[in-house]
Parts: sequence; structure tokens; C-alpha cells
Amino acid sequence: MSTYHDRLAALREELERRRLDGFVVPLTDEHMSEYVGAYAQRLAWLTGFQGSAGSAVVLPAAAAIFVDGRYTLQVREQVSPDLWSYQSVPETSIAQWLETHAQEGARIGYDPWLHTRGWAKAASAALAARGATLVAVDTNPIDAVWPDRPAPSDARLIVHPEGLAGRSSADKRQEIADWLAMRGADAAVLSALDSIAWTFNVRGADVDRTPVALAYAIVHADATAELFVAPEKIGGDVVQHLGNAVTVRPRDAFAGALRGLMGKRIIADPERAVAAIFSELEAGGATVVEARDPAVLPKAIKNDAEIAGHKAAQLRDGAALARFLHWLSVEAPGGSLTELSAADRLHAFRAETGLLRDLSFDTISGAGPNGAVVHYRVSADSDRAITADSLYLVDSGGQYQDGTTDVTRTVAVGTPSAEMRDRFTRVLKGHIALARAVFPEGTRGGQLDVLARQFLWAAGLDYAHGTGHGVGAYLSVHEGPQRIASGAAFSGGDEPLRAGMILSNEPGYYKAGEYGIRIENLILVERRDVAGAEKPMLGFETLTFAPIDRTLIDVALLDGGERGWIDAYHADVLRVIGPQLEGDARQWLERQTAPLDREQRG
Amino acid sequence: MSTYHDRLAALREELERRRLDGFVVPLTDEHMSEYVGAYAQRLAWLTGFQGSAGSAVVLPAAAAIFVDGRYTLQVREQVSPDLWSYQSVPETSIAQWLETHAQEGARIGYDPWLHTRGWAKAASAALAARGATLVAVDTNPIDAVWPDRPAPSDARLIVHPEGLAGRSSADKRQEIADWLAMRGADAAVLSALDSIAWTFNVRGADVDRTPVALAYAIVHADATAELFVAPEKIGGDVVQHLGNAVTVRPRDAFAGALRGLMGKRIIADPERAVAAIFSELEAGGATVVEARDPAVLPKAIKNDAEIAGHKAAQLRDGAALARFLHWLSVEAPGGSLTELSAADRLHAFRAETGLLRDLSFDTISGAGPNGAVVHYRVSADSDRAITADSLYLVDSGGQYQDGTTDVTRTVAVGTPSAEMRDRFTRVLKGHIALARAVFPEGTRGGQLDVLARQFLWAAGLDYAHGTGHGVGAYLSVHEGPQRIASGAAFSGGDEPLRAGMILSNEPGYYKAGEYGIRIENLILVERRDVAGAEKPMLGFETLTFAPIDRTLIDVALLDGGERGWIDAYHADVLRVIGPQLEGDARQWLERQTAPLDREQRG
Repeated sequence: MSTYHDRLAALREELERRRLDGFVVPLTDEHMSEYVGAYAQRLAWLTGFQGSAGSAVVLPAAAAIFVDGRYTLQVREQVSPDLWSYQSVPETSIAQWLETHAQEGARIGYDPWLHTRGWAKAASAALAARGATLVAVDTNPIDAVWPDRPAPSDARLIVHPEGLAGRSSADKRQEIADWLAMRGADAAVLSALDSIAWTFNVRGADVDRTPVALAYAIVHADATAELFVAPEKIGGDVVQHLGNAVTVRPRDAFAGALRGLMGKRIIADPERAVAAIFSELEAGGATVVEARDPAVLPKAIKNDAEIAGHKAAQLRDGAALARFLHWLSVEAPGGSLTELSAADRLHAFRAETGLLRDLSFDTISGAGPNGAVVHYRVSADSDRAITADSLYLVDSGGQYQDGTTDVTRTVAVGTPSAEMRDRFTRVLKGHIALARAVFPEGTRGGQLDVLARQFLWAAGLDYAHGTGHGVGAYLSVHEGPQRIASGAAFSGGDEPLRAGMILSNEPGYYKAGEYGIRIENLILVERRDVAGAEKPMLGFETLTFAPIDRTLIDVALLDGGERGWIDAYHADVLRVIGPQLEGDARQWLERQTAPLDREQRG
Repeated sequence: MSTYHDRLAALREELERRRLDGFVVPLTDEHMSEYVGAYAQRLAWLTGFQGSAGSAVVLPAAAAIFVDGRYTLQVREQVSPDLWSYQSVPETSIAQWLETHAQEGARIGYDPWLHTRGWAKAASAALAARGATLVAVDTNPIDAVWPDRPAPSDARLIVHPEGLAGRSSADKRQEIADWLAMRGADAAVLSALDSIAWTFNVRGADVDRTPVALAYAIVHADATAELFVAPEKIGGDVVQHLGNAVTVRPRDAFAGALRGLMGKRIIADPERAVAAIFSELEAGGATVVEARDPAVLPKAIKNDAEIAGHKAAQLRDGAALARFLHWLSVEAPGGSLTELSAADRLHAFRAETGLLRDLSFDTISGAGPNGAVVHYRVSADSDRAITADSLYLVDSGGQYQDGTTDVTRTVAVGTPSAEMRDRFTRVLKGHIALARAVFPEGTRGGQLDVLARQFLWAAGLDYAHGTGHGVGAYLSVHEGPQRIASGAAFSGGDEPLRAGMILSNEPGYYKAGEYGIRIENLILVERRDVAGAEKPMLGFETLTFAPIDRTLIDVALLDGGERGWIDAYHADVLRVIGPQLEGDARQWLERQTAPLDREQRG
């Protein structure tokens, strides 16, 4: 295996052969995916960086890697300072760095299949200020010097049953066709993998943690479609499922198909489609109309079948989590558990349901100070013992065919401090305030964000992440367009919430070097009948069932409504999860879900 | 006096002489002012419409007037349907209407001194779709056919004392000069009247309700400035105050001055400067850089002297309002009061302070169902008696040299219904939640909006206006850039709140045809020391002192913190206002501000 020094040198030679003076290396794939397959892990191959977000720029005499605050430490451990300079985003953007470091007249390459057009425009403008130009490459130069680059996954597509999807693919394609007709457009290009999976009622196994298949699609105004996917991934059942109105074509034929749309009005999503899709369409003589991918909103609004499936998954997932929390309550005081062993046991409890397809993301299993690392990912190197008188935070979820889960619980091992209980209770009050919110149709997620923060703010505290993200139906655990987030650092909360959307409700508090707290349930936006209401109102139904650690609740800080919410929630947990447990676990759950008692009420 | 028929005919003849096929008539002035002088009341002259917002379009064979939901009824009373068709905004925009009604090839005129460039671009694009063009006129054709058009006000400028302004004009100009230097710009154009008044520490009397003078200014990077204002409005004291670094030039010389900036980099505000300013600059060969008017933010952040002045004004204004509310409590039950007579008496109480310069806006004096008309303006025609067992809403404010006030109280005449008390208490709880909010630096007004709405939402209710607007320092009662508002219909809440900003806190509830409720105090953003805080925090200090009608409070709906807030607030009202009252009024105030008693606590 070559060294990172050799890899960087090989890339520079390749760039020189191509008469390029630099190259930009993002961490994404042709679908702007959050999780990408091994074949697209070019940043990791080139630099050694294993984080989930980052990018790099290579110049003849300089090279820089760009990561955000989550990875400030990790990048220094994994990436050689002799080869790479460390840059922090958003403080320094690639464009800013290039503006300072690119030579006048330099030609900086980028792969137009890995960037949005908006990024390319901004970077071009920054380089122009420097007298340099941004050049789209035909093929990625890293691929030319990466000898053992993995092939894209050859995992087969799986039909997603209509009983779970709730609608046929033909019905979904007709909705897109009607939408195209309203806009006078001939076709829409879909490149987001979850949009394609949703539209065609198929799933895949090409990417970790998200059950999607590498594909592109063009949906036409007559509700027919072309699905571009490696033919060997399609079995007879999928062919039959797709039917005559869907033409399956090789994934490689996609660019050519875009060029063949001369004279047509084609819709593409500037946030989700890469720059190459726009340039191929324009090169072929199509008129490109920018609009949001038409699958995004209907995919976010779950139908009755998807909601029923999700609830079935929650039932099963909640029992697995309850078994784990009981096991933890027995084992943790002994002092023998670590973050890794706990995460493995939780995975095993989920697997024991017999229906787990995958985790929905890498489990965040954080003991003590590691709980304060918001996006912590335990590894053999970082693995930490779960010790007495500390907090343990576990954020995890499962991919089941009927639903995707995501839940966080924070538990006290031994005796929590008064400060821990105060902070936990403030987080809990925010969680409850959001769970109980009633709001008019049209309200955006960002408007509700403060409800979850207000009790922390009152004590001068906060958390540096959004309050809620959308969740897919056996799809991505982070799904747009809705979010509960606001403020400069957490944009994206502008989408009105609609009945049927599933989101997370996950306020937290993190004390660096000491402990982390997060309480996360999934919630469903539902219509709410309010007596005397003057407009249509919405509210949330909590979908996640798992006990909230009562030893961390300072009941004196709760008002009657909040105590009532906790008691009712715990009664629901016992009703839903209790029948699935036996013996000690069942008794433990009964104790955990009993009404908050007088003694606790201080 | 000519008829509206004659006026419209005269305008059409004038348009024909100028070879125009249409003309757009907005309701604003060359400064995009909210209140405009009589000389600029072209819409009212042409159509008869007396509302505060609207616009019109005249074509050879059609004419339309565009108003929003506030004026749906009023426009029908004031504007002839034989001459004008009624159009509702935002449902139908001028651009949309022109797209349907303009003839192909038509030349539609607009006065570039009365529209932003953004508006002109959008309207041009809409007309282009129709094969028509938007044409800037050199002089306004209405002025050519309006024989008795009032001359612009010749009111003299008044020096705003540095003791009240807190900073010298030279200091403010230096701050703008530093800001220009940072941007590599040579000058900034100021056209917003309050920005000019603030920058030069002058006030005027050219516009109702806002003490500003008609002027333009160019502030240069060396901190010198040109002030364009009719010379006869400048007395010796103002000349001396402005000093040598400020050159006073005739207002008519402004356009020529813009054309004389060849080769310079000039900053202009696309939201506040009209299209003509940009076109004159570009015609003269200047490079125009778009940026927000540099006076906007420092004007919004009040300094210690402005805050002290504001508090002095509140003391005086609160006593006048308390005298009025006492008078109302004595007189209203007799049944002889009307909206007009009450508003007049309130004006008189303010005038009796001896320091009132003007009202800060037309008093909203709404009895019973008129209280539900959010922007109600009482007139002799609409004047309604204040009757028993109804609610009376009064929203009013004063312009004093040391501060601008704005306060709303809703009082029960006779016995309020249980529903009225429930609604009032929900509005009050929202008012209190916002007043007590603590939030980190960087929080935007829009993030806090839900705090004021949450208790109404819980009952399926809402109010169709923002929660808070900025307020000037002896300037406009509606001052940007900060707002407490969010959601699709109430944009503008994106500005981070900063210590020193003054806003209103004015949730409400309106039951059409029955009653209106609004509780409005002004609040000051202040730094807040929170023990153990992990980031700099802000909160609000309430600046307005007037009793809140206790007969409308359903104490059973308040929690301990809310009762505590009311009692503490009322104690402050008595402490601040009480010493200014005597006899019955004083005793009345003591009763109104006593702690909420057990009986009321249900």
C-alpha cells in the first residue's frame, strides 16, 4: 500500500500531465450524498482523513485540508502536517484559500460530478479575482492514480413493497408528471438517491446506513421514466415491479441521455443536482429550469402506510432499546462496560428483533466527557470506560424495512451531580415544550426552535446544533426539507411543517470535558382539533417509546403540565413496550415509568 | 376643484402627449418614506384614496387601484368604481396585472424617483413577457396636470441637541467614513430621511408624525458631506451646527451631484434608495456598490443619552396615558364618549405635558368591533360610541424631543365576557413571555416571535401582524432593521438583536365584528448577567409604564412567574407614574397597580 506522500505526489504528476495547476477534492458522490460508497472515498484515500465531512485542495507547492469544528482534533491525528495544511471551515472557505494561494493564471481543476453549479460559480468568481480559472475535468484525476480503487457496489435493488410505501410508483410518477405539466416542462432529472428510491419504490445496499442504490432517473411529463442503474443490479422481480413505463438503462448512459434532450424544458434541482447535470443538459440544447426535486416534499410527508410502518418499527426498536437500558442499569455499576461494548450490545439487541436491516447511522456511544462531543464516533482508539457517577449518552437508530428510527437517551451511572440534574431537567423542559407545541398550518420549523432552547437560555446555556431534522421512511435518517432550527448557524428551518412529516426533537446540553446530555424522540406532525380554533392547527405526536432517566429529573423545576407530560409519556412507554419485556426487564421498566413520586417532587 | 373623472382624463391626455401607454402611481416619496408630505400625495389626488398604503396603474382604457386587506372596504368607499377597478395585493401585483392588461408593445411609464430598482427590474421583466416596456419618465406626469399641487414643506430644520443625540454629527460621519474605508469606497448616498436626520443631528417638520426634513446627503470617505436641502430651510444656527465639513447644497442639485461622481466607488442601499439614484450614478460613470445604508444599524442601537432621553419621555408619556385611562374609567360608563372624543382627550393629555412635538402616528382609537380592525384610523364617518360591556383599544404615541413613544392598552367598559378575559389573558401571557425572554447574543427577532403567540396558538388563535417593530429616537415610530416577526407573511425578523435596540412588544387578538385586544409596551434590548452563563446573554427592559386592565385578567390562567411579573410591573408603574398624579387619579392608579389579589386568583 502506497504512502500518503506517494499518493499526493502521484496526483500532482497526474495534474501536471493534464496541465492543471490544482485540484479540489470534496467528500461526496455524484448524488451529493451524506454517506458515500467506498468507491467515492477519494478524500480518505488521498489524505487519510476518516471524518464524515471535509474537502481538500492540491496545488503544485501546497495542499490544504478543510474540516469543520467537529474534526479539528481528528484531522491532526489522521492527516500528516508535512503534506497538508489544516484549514477550518466556515472561517476559511476553499474559495478564500484559493484566492490567496493560487498562482495568477492558474488552471484549477474540479470534478463537475461532485459539486453543485452554485459552488462552481462562487469558486470561479473567487479565482477570477486572482486571475485564475476553474476548469471542469472530464474524468477524476484521483481515479487515474488510485490503482486499487473499489468498484461501485454491485448490490441488487430490492422492491419496496407497496404495502409499506402506501402508493404505487406509477402513482408517484403521475404526481410528478402533473407537477411537470403545471410548469410546462417536459421532464425532471432526479439524482438524489433517496428521491429515486422513493419514486420507484425500490431500495438498495450501495451506501452504508441508507438503503439506496446508485442510480439516476429522468421522469417525463407522460409519467414514463428512465432509470439509469447498472443492469447487473436488477433482478427479474425488480424488472417486473418497474413495469413497462420505466426503461432501465445503464448508469453510464445517463450523461448521454441528458445530451439527447435538445429543445426540451427540463427541471433540475440546483441544490441536489451536480454541476455536470446542468452542463450536459445545456450542451445538448435543453432549456434548464431550476426547481426543487419534485420528490422531496411528497417523500417528506408520510402517508398512512408509511406512518403505520414507522410505528411498528418504533414498537420493536423501543423494546430493543429498553432491553439495552435495563442491561446497562445492571452491568454499568460494575465498571466493566466501555463505549464500544455498550454500542455492540445495543446493536445486538436490535439485531435480535430479526428485522434489523442496518443501523440508521453510526451509534454515538459517549461516556463522560465523550458525551460532550456532539458527533462523537467511538473507535478502538477512543473507547472509554463507562465509570461511576458519570453520564452516558447513547444516540442510535435502526433501519427496518417498515421504518427508520433515531433516538437518544442520557443515563446517569451512579449518582448524578445537582448540576447534571439541573441541566438535564432544562433540556427535558425544552423537549416537552416542543412536544406539546400547537401551531397554525404554515408555521415553519425554525419558528418553533426557541421553545426547546428557552429554559437553557434562561440559565445562560445553549446547544450548538439544530433541534430537529426530518427522517425518512426506510430511507435517510437525515431527510429534508423540513428542519426545526433557526439562527445564523442553523439555517434550513424555513420549510412549513405539514401533517405527516416526521422530525426529531433533540435538544441537548454539552459541558466540554465533563458530560453531554441529549434527549431525542421522533415526532410526527399531525392535524390537531382545537375547540374553537379559528384556523387549521397542527401539533406533534411522539413516536419514540423509551424511558427517560428519572434520577436525572429535578422534579421541583417542572410545572404541573410538564409533570403530567412525563407521567403520560411513561405510561405510554409501559403500555407499548411493557408487553414485549419479561422478568427483571419488565419490572425495571415498570419502576422507570411509574409516575414521578412525591419524594422526587421535592 | 376638479372631479376624479377630470383628473384621470387629464392624466391620460398628458400620457398621450408623452407617447406613453400607461403610468404607475405609487404612494411614496423620493425617500421611500412611510409617511409622505402633501406634495407627494399623488395617489390621493388622482383617486380619492386616503389610506396609508396603495398604488394605481392607468392605461388608456383601464385603470386599477391596488390595496391590501386593510383597505378592502375603505377603497370602495373612497374610490369610484366607474373609474377604477379594485385589485388586492399581494394576491394581484401591479406586474401581474400589467402582464394581463398592457397592450403588446405598450410603453408603460414610471417615475424612477418613486420606485426601487428591484421593483423596476421585476416590472420590466413582467412587461417583457407581454412584449411591453417600462419607461422611466424625466418628470412626473401627474405633477403636470395637478394645478394646485402643494409645494414641498418649507419648514425649517432644527438642530437636535448633542445632549440628546449622545454623539456629534462629526463623530457619526467619521464612523461612516471608516466604514467606507473598510469597503474601499469613496462615498455613501443617504436618501432615507431618518438616516439623514440621525447622521447630521437635525430634525425637521416636512412630514406628518415623523420629525424629518426633505433632504439627500452624500457622505465622503474623508468624513465631509454634502447635504442637499432647500436653502431657505436652513437658519444660521443650523449652518453653525453643521460646520465647515458639511456643504449645504440645494435639493435640486442632488441629481447633478450624483452624475458628477465619475470614477468613484459609491455605496447606495437597494432597499432604501430609489432607482433614479442608481441610474444617475451609473450615467455619471460612478461604480455603484450595493450595501445597506451605513446609518441604519448605529441609528437602531441607541446610545446612553438616547436611552436616557427615551426614559424621560416615557415617564411623561406614561403619566399622560394614566390620566387618560383614569378619565376614561370615569367618563366611559356614562356612555357619552366616542372614539374621536377619546382620542382627542388623549391628545390633549399628552399636549398638556408642554413637551409634545407631534403624535408619533395617527391614534388608533377602536371601540368594540372597530378594535378588531388592526390599522383602524378613526374619522368623523367611522366614529363609534364607546358603549357598555365592550372593549376599547387605544394604540397611540407621542413625539417628544427626547424620545418617541408607542403604547397600546385595551380596557373593558362595563363587564367583559369570559371569552374576552380568556383571550386577553392569553395575549398577556405572550406579552410577558417575550418581556421575560433571555437569549444569547446573535439571536434574531424572528426567533422570539413564537414566545408571544404560543398561548393563543394553544387555543387555535393567532394575530395577523408581527409582534414587534423597532422605534426611533425622536424619529420614525417604525424603524428598522430589527423586528420580532417570523413566518411567511411577516418577514424582516432576520436581524440579530443588539443591546440598545428599542422594539415594541405587541401581541394581540382580533375577533372580527366583535372586539380587538392588543397589549403593547416598548422594550429595550440589554445585556443580561446570568450567573454561570456560558455565552453573552441579552434580555429586555420594559420601557413603557401604564396599568394593564386587571378586570380583563383571568388570574387562574397565570402561573406564579407570570403573576409575579404583573405585580412587579404594576409596582414599577406606581413608582414611576404615581408621583406625577394627584387626587382621584392617584388613588385610581393605586387600585389598578395593587398586587393581583386572592379573589382574582380564582
